[in-house]
Amino acid sequence: MLPIARLDDLLDRALAEDLPGEDLTSVVTVDASVRARAVAVARSELVVCGGAVFARVFERIDPSARASTKVADGSRAKPGDALWTVEGPARALLAGERTALNLVQRMSGVATLARAFVGAVPEECSAIITDTRKTTPGLRLLERYAVRTGGAHNHRNDLSSAILIKDNHIVAARGIERAIERARALAPHTSRIEVEVQNLEELERALDARADVILLDNFDLELLKEAVRRAKGRALLEASGGVTRETIADIAKTGVDVISVGALTHSAPAADIALDLELLV
Amino acid sequence: MLPIARLDDLLDRALAEDLPGEDLTSVVTVDASVRARAVAVARSELVVCGGAVFARVFERIDPSARASTKVADGSRAKPGDALWTVEGPARALLAGERTALNLVQRMSGVATLARAFVGAVPEECSAIITDTRKTTPGLRLLERYAVRTGGAHNHRNDLSSAILIKDNHIVAARGIERAIERARALAPHTSRIEVEVQNLEELERALDARADVILLDNFDLELLKEAVRRAKGRALLEASGGVTRETIADIAKTGVDVISVGALTHSAPAADIALDLELLV
Amino acid sequence: MLPIARLDDLLDRALAEDLPGEDLTSVVTVDASVRARAVAVARSELVVCGGAVFARVFERIDPSARASTKVADGSRAKPGDALWTVEGPARALLAGERTALNLVQRMSGVATLARAFVGAVPEECSAIITDTRKTTPGLRLLERYAVRTGGAHNHRNDLSSAILIKDNHIVAARGIERAIERARALAPHTSRIEVEVQNLEELERALDARADVILLDNFDLELLKEAVRRAKGRALLEASGGVTRETIADIAKTGVDVISVGALTHSAPAADIALDLELLV
Amino acid sequence: MLPIARLDDLLDRALAEDLPGEDLTSVVTVDASVRARAVAVARSELVVCGGAVFARVFERIDPSARASTKVADGSRAKPGDALWTVEGPARALLAGERTALNLVQRMSGVATLARAFVGAVPEECSAIITDTRKTTPGLRLLERYAVRTGGAHNHRNDLSSAILIKDNHIVAARGIERAIERARALAPHTSRIEVEVQNLEELERALDARADVILLDNFDLELLKEAVRRAKGRALLEASGGVTRETIADIAKTGVDVISVGALTHSAPAADIALDLELLV
Amino acid sequence: MLPIARLDDLLDRALAEDLPGEDLTSVVTVDASVRARAVAVARSELVVCGGAVFARVFERIDPSARASTKVADGSRAKPGDALWTVEGPARALLAGERTALNLVQRMSGVATLARAFVGAVPEECSAIITDTRKTTPGLRLLERYAVRTGGAHNHRNDLSSAILIKDNHIVAARGIERAIERARALAPHTSRIEVEVQNLEELERALDARADVILLDNFDLELLKEAVRRAKGRALLEASGGVTRETIADIAKTGVDVISVGALTHSAPAADIALDLELLV
Amino acid sequence: MLPIARLDDLLDRALAEDLPGEDLTSVVTVDASVRARAVAVARSELVVCGGAVFARVFERIDPSARASTKVADGSRAKPGDALWTVEGPARALLAGERTALNLVQRMSGVATLARAFVGAVPEECSAIITDTRKTTPGLRLLERYAVRTGGAHNHRNDLSSAILIKDNHIVAARGIERAIERARALAPHTSRIEVEVQNLEELERALDARADVILLDNFDLELLKEAVRRAKGRALLEASGGVTRETIADIAKTGVDVISVGALTHSAPAADIALDLELLV
Repeated sequence: MLPIARLDDLLDRALAEDLPGEDLTSVVTVDASVRARAVAVARSELVVCGGAVFARVFERIDPSARASTKVADGSRAKPGDALWTVEGPARALLAGERTALNLVQRMSGVATLARAFVGAVPEECSAIITDTRKTTPGLRLLERYAVRTGGAHNHRNDLSSAILIKDNHIVAARGIERAIERARALAPHTSRIEVEVQNLEELERALDARADVILLDNFDLELLKEAVRRAKGRALLEASGGVTRETIADIAKTGVDVISVGALTHSAPAADIALDLELLV
Repeated sequence: MLPIARLDDLLDRALAEDLPGEDLTSVVTVDASVRARAVAVARSELVVCGGAVFARVFERIDPSARASTKVADGSRAKPGDALWTVEGPARALLAGERTALNLVQRMSGVATLARAFVGAVPEECSAIITDTRKTTPGLRLLERYAVRTGGAHNHRNDLSSAILIKDNHIVAARGIERAIERARALAPHTSRIEVEVQNLEELERALDARADVILLDNFDLELLKEAVRRAKGRALLEASGGVTRETIADIAKTGVDVISVGALTHSAPAADIALDLELLV
Repeated sequence: MLPIARLDDLLDRALAEDLPGEDLTSVVTVDASVRARAVAVARSELVVCGGAVFARVFERIDPSARASTKVADGSRAKPGDALWTVEGPARALLAGERTALNLVQRMSGVATLARAFVGAVPEECSAIITDTRKTTPGLRLLERYAVRTGGAHNHRNDLSSAILIKDNHIVAARGIERAIERARALAPHTSRIEVEVQNLEELERALDARADVILLDNFDLELLKEAVRRAKGRALLEASGGVTRETIADIAKTGVDVISVGALTHSAPAADIALDLELLV
Repeated sequence: MLPIARLDDLLDRALAEDLPGEDLTSVVTVDASVRARAVAVARSELVVCGGAVFARVFERIDPSARASTKVADGSRAKPGDALWTVEGPARALLAGERTALNLVQRMSGVATLARAFVGAVPEECSAIITDTRKTTPGLRLLERYAVRTGGAHNHRNDLSSAILIKDNHIVAARGIERAIERARALAPHTSRIEVEVQNLEELERALDARADVILLDNFDLELLKEAVRRAKGRALLEASGGVTRETIADIAKTGVDVISVGALTHSAPAADIALDLELLV
Repeated sequence: MLPIARLDDLLDRALAEDLPGEDLTSVVTVDASVRARAVAVARSELVVCGGAVFARVFERIDPSARASTKVADGSRAKPGDALWTVEGPARALLAGERTALNLVQRMSGVATLARAFVGAVPEECSAIITDTRKTTPGLRLLERYAVRTGGAHNHRNDLSSAILIKDNHIVAARGIERAIERARALAPHTSRIEVEVQNLEELERALDARADVILLDNFDLELLKEAVRRAKGRALLEASGGVTRETIADIAKTGVDVISVGALTHSAPAADIALDLELLV
Repeated sequence: MLPIARLDDLLDRALAEDLPGEDLTSVVTVDASVRARAVAVARSELVVCGGAVFARVFERIDPSARASTKVADGSRAKPGDALWTVEGPARALLAGERTALNLVQRMSGVATLARAFVGAVPEECSAIITDTRKTTPGLRLLERYAVRTGGAHNHRNDLSSAILIKDNHIVAARGIERAIERARALAPHTSRIEVEVQNLEELERALDARADVILLDNFDLELLKEAVRRAKGRALLEASGGVTRETIADIAKTGVDVISVGALTHSAPAADIALDLELLV
């Protein structure tokens, strides 16, 4: 559920960026009275994401625009499938086309990639796939929604949500134990205490300090297995660092609980979606 | 040159997104009095981009942070090179780390990809490489700067900058000639009239209607050559659609003047840059 | 077409300025339940402009307000003509009256002045009249729309839209030729290269450097004619500087292609429009 | 005193409008390393206004820009006088030129006009000249400051500041007496109760209802004199409506206390100020 | 009357603060298709205030939410009374619950306290009760509305509305007389001149300088009576400083015209209002 | 650590609210050249909070203002203690006085109340005191900082931070078990799963469903003790609902882990702090 106030804030800025003035081309080539229907069509296999965004972009150009959803968020679509349609003044549809597509292509791209990662986890594994904070500045709300739409999980929303003690915190806190201890004493009780470790020795120290979650940073498969062996039942284990669709199955099989994948948001290829326009008589 | 007012507007929003409240982890694990130096280090080959952004992120958290540039924007860096440093309260450096990295990794990624595309154009070809409006909503200012930093050119900035009559405009205007004619009559005289064509027949019609620039949408190499043969000297020719690093040399050799590449901004992989923290005594 | 997102941004700020708190006078003198109709009436000859703005001001005070247009944008009106009406709670109409009038009087004033300038160009002349960037900070979107509503053309929208090399750029670039050459090498291919010249010698240099458009700054009529004689067919010529309704016909007759008039936006007298209120029983 | 927070809010928006992206012309024609000094020079007789605005525009583009004031706000300047200077990167000075000039020309224009109106009031008259709420939406803060800089007075700041019962309020309140009575009962005690009247009969009713200030709307000189005769000592009298520099002396001589002049802000011609650039070696 | 543009600005920020991302709990525990009705119920005696705010919070999350008012602003409610209801997607109602309650509890709390203060003034006294500028930063619009809803009056809206010369102004102006004299010469004629005095000697000086309103700062009852004796008819008298519900009757009986009470806004206890949810089948 | 970008956003709005135009009184009564020092002085016993806010308010009016801290945040102060000073133009100090005081009085008020609650917990009890989301809309960042400054803990920052299943979620999810189960399956692994229960039977169900934290809503002391007896070691227990300084010791003694107190932020009386001005010669 994307609150409309949050969505408008984001979309109004996107529109301001592409429309500092009017849409020159539409204004000079198209009569104000021309009305049209635009259909968003998938041009590749994708997991649909962004129906509410698609609709709202056009409403924020012209409130008389009327959008409808042909395929719900989270469904799969194949090339040629009509995803959403919108009717209204042709000028408004043309003015919003690129902004709408830039957003929904990204959202569907993230959802599609998330689905692929989730699908690559063997059924017998319980590991969940999560995003990270490596999102596009300004678009985190949409990208996290897309991650969930693709069937993956969200990690913490932001720096104010939960405790994750990373390598640089440990440097600044002068030690893992000290960092964990302070976190336990001061953090909100709603947050688990997660700590990032670089090797098995740090893992042991984190376990001894009773971290709730331990992020195993760039551990190879052997190390992951050993970590699981040592820690299972004492802390949640999160594998992270350079996870790909090729490696994720093996990582999942090590028995870790969580696999976080920065690529879900920082490297998802845009899904291919086009907008076809037809005039309304 | 990125105007500071425009930069602050963008960065303050990015920070609000990651810091709706305080940075929990830094606040609970690090003393307010600890000061540190953070060094941004390249972890892959890249074209450096974003020094001003890196510096300003930390200043917008704590005005006492002091950043300096080790490698200028546009230079190449190799793994291990220190790019920028910043000194200040450790809490401020930790709070800004992810936002700064998310931005400069993207900027350097775009610059690096732009350099690769530009470098793939054979020397004897005069074709320039440009971006498109397929930028990340909210980050166009930074991404276009990165495109230029990589040695490529910018296309029009936004819908209000210049005329580009695309397929959907032609539908809404009921014909290429009519669209071009109206554009010539009404458009700002500072803008060239560009029109997108799907085939040679439309190319001829656009030439007859005296378009200044013609975008050849998804033309294959043979068609591009034929288009150049027919249009050279009568209009600027822009090739677009699915251009890759593999195909760009051949496209350039056809003699087109401009090759626009959406991938520069919508699919540039983030450059790998890490932040190393050391305490200041 | 004024995108509603862009309009709201502008109107909400205008309302915040006049309504930091509530409208004291309406609140203390008028019952909340009183409903009224307000009619905007022309009090002078004018070209109507701003119907969408008029309506939206009141909707942004009270979404139940309903406005309708009696005379379309671009039409002429004479004193006494009803232009627009709005019905709603009397308090909302009173609260929005001044903000709405301040905006539509300015817009109609600009449109009216633009029409006068356009009308002063002899029929046999092909010169178009354009605005400049001497717009009111914050209101450029509305003023450029008004310029077009009056039948004139828009110049470039902003500094990011197109190249215009002015006197100070030439100083900073150390020479006209150098400036033009760099612009041709680096500017977006969608933009023509325009350069401002102060005399015939600079004109020749600009022509030799193959500028697309040449702005003749404060040339008198004889100089303009000579410039046209030399440059016609080699570059578009734009006359600028102190153009008035009295001088524009003679300037147009020199054969220049474009006449840009800062006065269209920086000195258009507000059109006289009043708001008459009647109660609804 | 213009609070910097308020100024930045206004200037950042003005810059966003003219710089949706970078300043194309400066970026392509001028090296980033070129530094320059720009001098703002009066080209007409004017009352100087806007030094703080001039300086801040450039600082909001590049914080290293350094401005200094040659002639203080409120002083008279003659053609050729240097008003303010600013040093910094040439690109920043070029990018800010038009925004800075658009603002200070307007401010100095308002101040100059205000001075002219104030100067036209015979010395023996005690009438003060005030502005109205017919300011430019978004620029009221600057325009009211300019009015005072020119030696005139400010009327109420906004709808939330003070009570002014106008014709439409009287309609909605169903009667002058009723409106005044309600206002007296409910208005903040910091506000005088002002009421607009159209004729002597309404004046009498307003006096009987003990209005503190009475606005005589479009009264001719004879009516103004009669109004003064009747009301002097019982209420402050404000003359308003179509006041010009030609008529203001006679209006002042009628003995009214206040003359409000919408033209001060809605029709002040921009003062002529130019920016001359010189390079710093 | 709260202009919707002003309300949205305030509510959208409040929602951004509580919803930097999505509402985690609703999203994970409740199906998107579940619809519900939420009823706001008074849990204590209170003066109802905030119906428009309640409704708009939910509309700004989901425009399909429909709210209705059961008890009008300004009415008294007792524990168990249903005040407002809203129907819509359960997720939207859950996401808006706390923001809506935080606002209306505060507004109703202020209105309730204002009513109590007003009710404590003996009927035979003409003193009005006003708020001060000691409002919650960001919520002044709502709190002043609530003050009036409770039957009290508003003081000046802000620093730009009216003149109030306080102790620190007198220090900076170097004397009461000088401050009043300058204010009379320069202030908007719509504003009364109010001055704060600390003792009877300053009162005399303020009267001699013809202040319109005199704020008696922390005068005890005897001093207030003496002040009234000396000043009645020469200036309005405002008592201020530590006024409580216990002392207000006696203060009113001294004959002062205005009693300003900072506690109305800075110390009003939140009214107790709960939100009960029921599912719609 | 309050990021300056977040602080400016908040303070600029607060200033806009109190300074829609200029500060009338300062401008008319005080010369622009007068400089002064203002000292913030405690007038009651308080825990100091807000030094950075105090300083920044004045810098956002005039960047030349210089503030310094006399007593650090978190220290106790007694009546008469100087807390912070600021030097600058007198007009700027006067213009910022009320906004600064409104904020720091609230912050110090919250910190003082938090300290009182924390101090009331018997030493042998391990219960921590936390705030809730019943903060002032728009000021949560400052109020949560103040809570910690007073020695209490923060609860979750916002709806996007952590899972807290309340009574209305249970209604919408159709059952405690179902709600907890879904939360466990879908929530970020960084968040504990907290659930609110109304009685012992719900407590048992929540325990059986393995909630991490259980909020005991309005349990009396006997019920709290019984809850602790049953749940200790199986889940964290949070007592909430009508906690006062009088009851908190007994609640702590029941053995609950967390006591959340809405009053910390929704009902903290403003600390009494005054600003004394002295002129600088």
